[in-house]
Amino acid sequence: MSDPSLFAATFSTAALREAFSARAWLQALLDFEAALARVQARAGRIPASAAEAIEAACRAERFDSLALGQAAVTAGNPVIPLVRALAAALPREASGFVHLGATSQDALDTAQMLLARRALDLVLSELDGLLDRCAELAAAHRDTPMAARTLLQHALPTTFGCKVAGWLAALMDARARLAGLRADGLALQLGGAAGTLAALEPDGLALARDLARELGLREPLVPWHAARGRIAELACALGVTAGALGKIALDLALLEQTEVGELRERVTPGRGGSSTLPQKRNPVGAAAALACAKRVPGLVGSILGAMPQEHERAVGGWQAEWETLPEIFRLTGAAAAHLGVTLRGLEVDAARMRANLAATGGAIAAERVSLALAPRLGRLAAQELVEAACRRDGPLRDALAAEPRIAAELDARRIDELLDPARHLGAAGELTDRALAAWRELRARR
Amino acid sequence: MSDPSLFAATFSTAALREAFSARAWLQALLDFEAALARVQARAGRIPASAAEAIEAACRAERFDSLALGQAAVTAGNPVIPLVRALAAALPREASGFVHLGATSQDALDTAQMLLARRALDLVLSELDGLLDRCAELAAAHRDTPMAARTLLQHALPTTFGCKVAGWLAALMDARARLAGLRADGLALQLGGAAGTLAALEPDGLALARDLARELGLREPLVPWHAARGRIAELACALGVTAGALGKIALDLALLEQTEVGELRERVTPGRGGSSTLPQKRNPVGAAAALACAKRVPGLVGSILGAMPQEHERAVGGWQAEWETLPEIFRLTGAAAAHLGVTLRGLEVDAARMRANLAATGGAIAAERVSLALAPRLGRLAAQELVEAACRRDGPLRDALAAEPRIAAELDARRIDELLDPARHLGAAGELTDRALAAWRELRARR
Amino acid sequence: MSDPSLFAATFSTAALREAFSARAWLQALLDFEAALARVQARAGRIPASAAEAIEAACRAERFDSLALGQAAVTAGNPVIPLVRALAAALPREASGFVHLGATSQDALDTAQMLLARRALDLVLSELDGLLDRCAELAAAHRDTPMAARTLLQHALPTTFGCKVAGWLAALMDARARLAGLRADGLALQLGGAAGTLAALEPDGLALARDLARELGLREPLVPWHAARGRIAELACALGVTAGALGKIALDLALLEQTEVGELRERVTPGRGGSSTLPQKRNPVGAAAALACAKRVPGLVGSILGAMPQEHERAVGGWQAEWETLPEIFRLTGAAAAHLGVTLRGLEVDAARMRANLAATGGAIAAERVSLALAPRLGRLAAQELVEAACRRDGPLRDALAAEPRIAAELDARRIDELLDPARHLGAAGELTDRALAAWRELRARR
Amino acid sequence: MSDPSLFAATFSTAALREAFSARAWLQALLDFEAALARVQARAGRIPASAAEAIEAACRAERFDSLALGQAAVTAGNPVIPLVRALAAALPREASGFVHLGATSQDALDTAQMLLARRALDLVLSELDGLLDRCAELAAAHRDTPMAARTLLQHALPTTFGCKVAGWLAALMDARARLAGLRADGLALQLGGAAGTLAALEPDGLALARDLARELGLREPLVPWHAARGRIAELACALGVTAGALGKIALDLALLEQTEVGELRERVTPGRGGSSTLPQKRNPVGAAAALACAKRVPGLVGSILGAMPQEHERAVGGWQAEWETLPEIFRLTGAAAAHLGVTLRGLEVDAARMRANLAATGGAIAAERVSLALAPRLGRLAAQELVEAACRRDGPLRDALAAEPRIAAELDARRIDELLDPARHLGAAGELTDRALAAWRELRARR
Repeated sequence: MSDPSLFAATFSTAALREAFSARAWLQALLDFEAALARVQARAGRIPASAAEAIEAACRAERFDSLALGQAAVTAGNPVIPLVRALAAALPREASGFVHLGATSQDALDTAQMLLARRALDLVLSELDGLLDRCAELAAAHRDTPMAARTLLQHALPTTFGCKVAGWLAALMDARARLAGLRADGLALQLGGAAGTLAALEPDGLALARDLARELGLREPLVPWHAARGRIAELACALGVTAGALGKIALDLALLEQTEVGELRERVTPGRGGSSTLPQKRNPVGAAAALACAKRVPGLVGSILGAMPQEHERAVGGWQAEWETLPEIFRLTGAAAAHLGVTLRGLEVDAARMRANLAATGGAIAAERVSLALAPRLGRLAAQELVEAACRRDGPLRDALAAEPRIAAELDARRIDELLDPARHLGAAGELTDRALAAWRELRARR
Repeated sequence: MSDPSLFAATFSTAALREAFSARAWLQALLDFEAALARVQARAGRIPASAAEAIEAACRAERFDSLALGQAAVTAGNPVIPLVRALAAALPREASGFVHLGATSQDALDTAQMLLARRALDLVLSELDGLLDRCAELAAAHRDTPMAARTLLQHALPTTFGCKVAGWLAALMDARARLAGLRADGLALQLGGAAGTLAALEPDGLALARDLARELGLREPLVPWHAARGRIAELACALGVTAGALGKIALDLALLEQTEVGELRERVTPGRGGSSTLPQKRNPVGAAAALACAKRVPGLVGSILGAMPQEHERAVGGWQAEWETLPEIFRLTGAAAAHLGVTLRGLEVDAARMRANLAATGGAIAAERVSLALAPRLGRLAAQELVEAACRRDGPLRDALAAEPRIAAELDARRIDELLDPARHLGAAGELTDRALAAWRELRARR
Repeated sequence: MSDPSLFAATFSTAALREAFSARAWLQALLDFEAALARVQARAGRIPASAAEAIEAACRAERFDSLALGQAAVTAGNPVIPLVRALAAALPREASGFVHLGATSQDALDTAQMLLARRALDLVLSELDGLLDRCAELAAAHRDTPMAARTLLQHALPTTFGCKVAGWLAALMDARARLAGLRADGLALQLGGAAGTLAALEPDGLALARDLARELGLREPLVPWHAARGRIAELACALGVTAGALGKIALDLALLEQTEVGELRERVTPGRGGSSTLPQKRNPVGAAAALACAKRVPGLVGSILGAMPQEHERAVGGWQAEWETLPEIFRLTGAAAAHLGVTLRGLEVDAARMRANLAATGGAIAAERVSLALAPRLGRLAAQELVEAACRRDGPLRDALAAEPRIAAELDARRIDELLDPARHLGAAGELTDRALAAWRELRARR
Repeated sequence: MSDPSLFAATFSTAALREAFSARAWLQALLDFEAALARVQARAGRIPASAAEAIEAACRAERFDSLALGQAAVTAGNPVIPLVRALAAALPREASGFVHLGATSQDALDTAQMLLARRALDLVLSELDGLLDRCAELAAAHRDTPMAARTLLQHALPTTFGCKVAGWLAALMDARARLAGLRADGLALQLGGAAGTLAALEPDGLALARDLARELGLREPLVPWHAARGRIAELACALGVTAGALGKIALDLALLEQTEVGELRERVTPGRGGSSTLPQKRNPVGAAAALACAKRVPGLVGSILGAMPQEHERAVGGWQAEWETLPEIFRLTGAAAAHLGVTLRGLEVDAARMRANLAATGGAIAAERVSLALAPRLGRLAAQELVEAACRRDGPLRDALAAEPRIAAELDARRIDELLDPARHLGAAGELTDRALAAWRELRARR
């Protein structure tokens, strides 16, 4: 028997691992079977005693997940041997009422939805922690100037708060979609072997409505055995979330670079060292989050690629989802968790941010000079003059002052003022406030 | 100079090709520049005459898209040379007011959104045509029995209407998401070089609000130069749509198989023949739709994979979106268009459906026999007896009657009745009605 | 603590699961450390006694893989805590010689290569079993006529042997690439922290050569910490293999369709049944193989997408490979294993193949008629006449005879002869022989 | 009619665009038809005069690619209308001999191979230019010290030559695989409608051999209409190449960062500026190359995902390759071309490299101190002492000297010597020489 992956802790939280464990799957499948029996008993379709016996037997710990997993290979899915084992565990008078009218995929898809609900809660909770920490950072650094970088070059000044506000906004969007799917996107599957509820006649649809209510899932318009939009929407929403998380992780890693040094991950024993290099202070949290995020797009592609499923049940495409969606959940949740830990221990070096801002001798605010010249010289001419000054050696202020057409418009004091990065932050503060206001509103609602 | 792909017509509609043509891109970029000038003039930031001159010059046909495309390689994007060319085309007193306060990505992302709006309309329109035709088919064949197939095996009877209702429901879900993004997901980009609106001070945010209104786009919470959730959501929603379309195409191709023969695509001159085989009647529409659909998941993966973008503007990831999102639009729209043509010309062979239903000698309704036996013999025992009868040669009715434990419960007439597929359609009709009702509601709203 | 996936047995063979278990990883990492000590001792760099002590301690079972996996999160990789634990387990005089001059990635990449070697052997062995069975089938059915199908339509007659020969040829190509990588594609990683072997001076390169020989791996031209072509080539070769396996699985599932019925998977207790449908005989082996195959392309995309790795060691991209490459191995091996089981139990229904061939009333051989007419009537005219006859109701022979321009060239006997599928098999037999000859050659060499 | 993409020049070279233009496709299809007629005439199967007439008519410029592309939609592929148009253009006595015995896919796949051959030559040529430039850089900077960076942190010193040697080695591996496929991986497709060469009886196989020779392609073991390994191998080899190119591009962009400043792309008019920021010097070449590279993995996934193709010709999967493989060629070639331009204009700032090396006060060579201490203090104890010194403020040399256990072993001069980066380059020079030697060998052969 094999042990879990050596890398399991890197690519999942413990809770998400547990959320999709064999036992969790079995319990969710059994929860479906128990609820099915319950609503059937309530509707007078099966004896109440049978439903009670079934419910009592529906405990995952009573079943051998390894044996069932093995039997799933030949059966085609784990529900067939599970139903058999469940029936065998029941008194004869109850055993005939197990799984009545349902098909394997009814149980498995519904179980997937129940597990997804729990997993969404876990991911949302990781995101909420992260959002709170982002909000703290944005508020604390609302006015901490730093270089904005485009194509990895200094562009203009911004603030660290404004940068974090961008992370916050992206995460709130991703969270909103996940929360929306948590509320509306999780549906019961119940169609029977052909998706017609034939074995639940009459009133199969009423039974489906009851069962959906019983399990706290949406009642779908029609059974969706081979219409996988729900699964794909979940995968996509997680994929977008993972992308937003990856962006934060990448920014962190870039700002932690030796030459940039504006952020540092907290040093704790065993954290971020190297196996050989005593001086290293590795961005291990950012790297782990980025590694998780990088694995998600291909998996979302797999889910989308499996969508064209044959007729009323697929020969491969459905089965390809079973481990893939959980993997996407685990990786996205782990990326959020890694970032949460990292941001909680993040050291922000505002002095280094200021020093870096100054590193180009004022050039980072060159746009301001060119904007100041534009009304008189024309936008392009102004830009070309300033561009030429930027190409010259030495401090930009001197190069600007040395250009007669510039000097004719701006004196040295005005040039210095224009080149002061802290005076060129635009709406950075207001944008930070906006994102924080939206976060506060979200927090009040959640 | 190169000509368009030999396969262009297969993988795009003409309208979608046009929607992302070089000229359409240029016009959208120019629309951004013109609107920017307009709202700046309105706010008294630039002279009204300059805005008028700019607006007048913002005609795509005046610019050389090949030269601009070439210049984009060295400039890093096409906006830089376009702005230069636009300024050069203006009187000197107006030229300084072009693109004022904006950055290349403001123009390009906003243009992408404007193009996406038009493309969404085109895709939605293709979907609506398809939905209407699906609704017609579902209504016409509400009670046309056919075999439901799971893992490509006959499972139980269903109706063709119920199958089409499943397509309809999946397409309506996909459409709802696209329509939602059309309404709420398209946002202005305006942040200036660092995303702080620094060059639009003071009141950059007010200007952004005006500009968003002017262009009919959402005002985003904060600029989103490196937060690509909006692009990714579009890609994902199209990906899910393409998956739903691919499922329909696959079902069509499978039902058109020589041995199945339940559907046929209309024969028109030049349609569906073979280069050598005179008898062929190829599912060309289904094949084309499926080919389009199969190309989308990898592209969605590319968009998601490009999401982790560096700092305030990416070095590669952003650029990777430029052709990819249009490609996803084109392929999804083409898949819908191919299916529309195919479904409009679809020949449904209800007789063949009935014949296929009968092909297994009644076995397709075997579940009914086992359900009828279950209360007396227990579910598993009943299923095993019927399963054994199914494995025997000869008509199933005889094999069932020959089994004493079955014969003790069911006489020959009852067996025949149970094996009649038309009596085992479950809620197929109601499910069809449900989907049609939802479609009618949608049609009334759209 | 979580248990393994409920679906583990469906998506991996037991041997491949074991091949990438936490224990297997630990042992491979320890094998690297032991071999490194050994060659350093041999070169007189460290005391022989230290190497012996290290080697003796390098037993995976002595280490706590869960604790190490957990420590890997904060350390950034599992090698750092493992080296620490290994050193702690050694006498003081040996502990300073552990991991000397190596970096974490040296150990981890080399371990990955050692595991890949074992995993390649396992996949090759599954493929060999499959090839042998394909060869048996091709030989046995060299002359069994069946319909060739293009776009899922009957095209012309072929033989089942010729179809299997196509599978065989594709698998042999895939196998050849895997075997080539097994022989040449697995390389030592040894570069130290910067890839310069600085901590192994002098003669680091000589040591690397010795270590490569010791471990049976290639000596690379230069260290490849951030040049991931080797990993990507493995992923791609497995991806192509999975694609070839998926094609076979899809053909099987299609030929097992109720309406086609030319193949059947062997019935064994618990195999291929349905949870509710007594008559079902599901293509469970084909479905499982196809499910495995469908999951691979996205994962290969992940490996390729992770290739652009930063500088001398990646911040995310490298880590993203750790579980992904093993997953690709497991899925590819499982697809091969499922097909092996399926093909060994495959029932070929030659009578049904013949019956299906006849199902179109001879139309499947219509090409022959048109070829026979072409020299006299011209290719296109001939094809159009025959096409028109195919569109008419009733047997094709009558429709052909009723067309005066055809009747003028061919009498009824000649038409019957031309329409006999068994006389229109072309080189099917020779192609089968070719593939079998190539297989025999391969088998002789392996 | 639509114009080419505004971004065409960014994502393709002109030559590669031309290589897959509609006209190039048509000519390749016509080359197949002409060669087929030629070898059939040579074998006495068709009149020599017919072959001559066909050959004369096989000029792409005589055909209307737009009309054929449009007709391909309804026909299912462009070969059917092309053959029809070709026949129509011939004298009646020749028209019956066009395309004789072939199927559409024979023409299209063979054309794809012919186009791939040309495209491989173009990509190889771009790679060769890049390799030459890498070799120049590696030789010129064999001994230019710079910081090696792992997880984006300074790790140890290396040389720029050694870094470029790593690029060179990875590109040579990728090139070798592409060249191998150029030599062995391009095969004729000729099987006729069912892959049995039935319409070419007798001696279809001999004809295939002749045709392969005529076209300079491999004769495959068996026709490969639905065995897409050849296409997938090409896609994968290009994918690995794109990954290697992306890695170089990423390194460039990182080294061009404002704070790092070790490399700069040449400034030319219009190159690398910003639409608003006068001081920007954008890594436009690196960004373009990276954008190209990022688009490839998803496309490779599409090709692999399309591999499971139905029976003797696919209903979607084959068609999905038509534009995808060309796209992969274009993007990979463009990535190479962008890097070629960039590296030819690259400014290497060796002084900045030295300055950055010194930026951590010697800590980058800390490993050397710990190695020097290890024999006396034990490896872990040594590493911990040095790690602690690195965490202290002030120059590392002082912190080291202040630690009594270190001072007991190493005096100040020895510490300074150990901390000198230029003395800690390991085998960087030899590794560079190795890669250059391999490149020289390759250049001699090519």
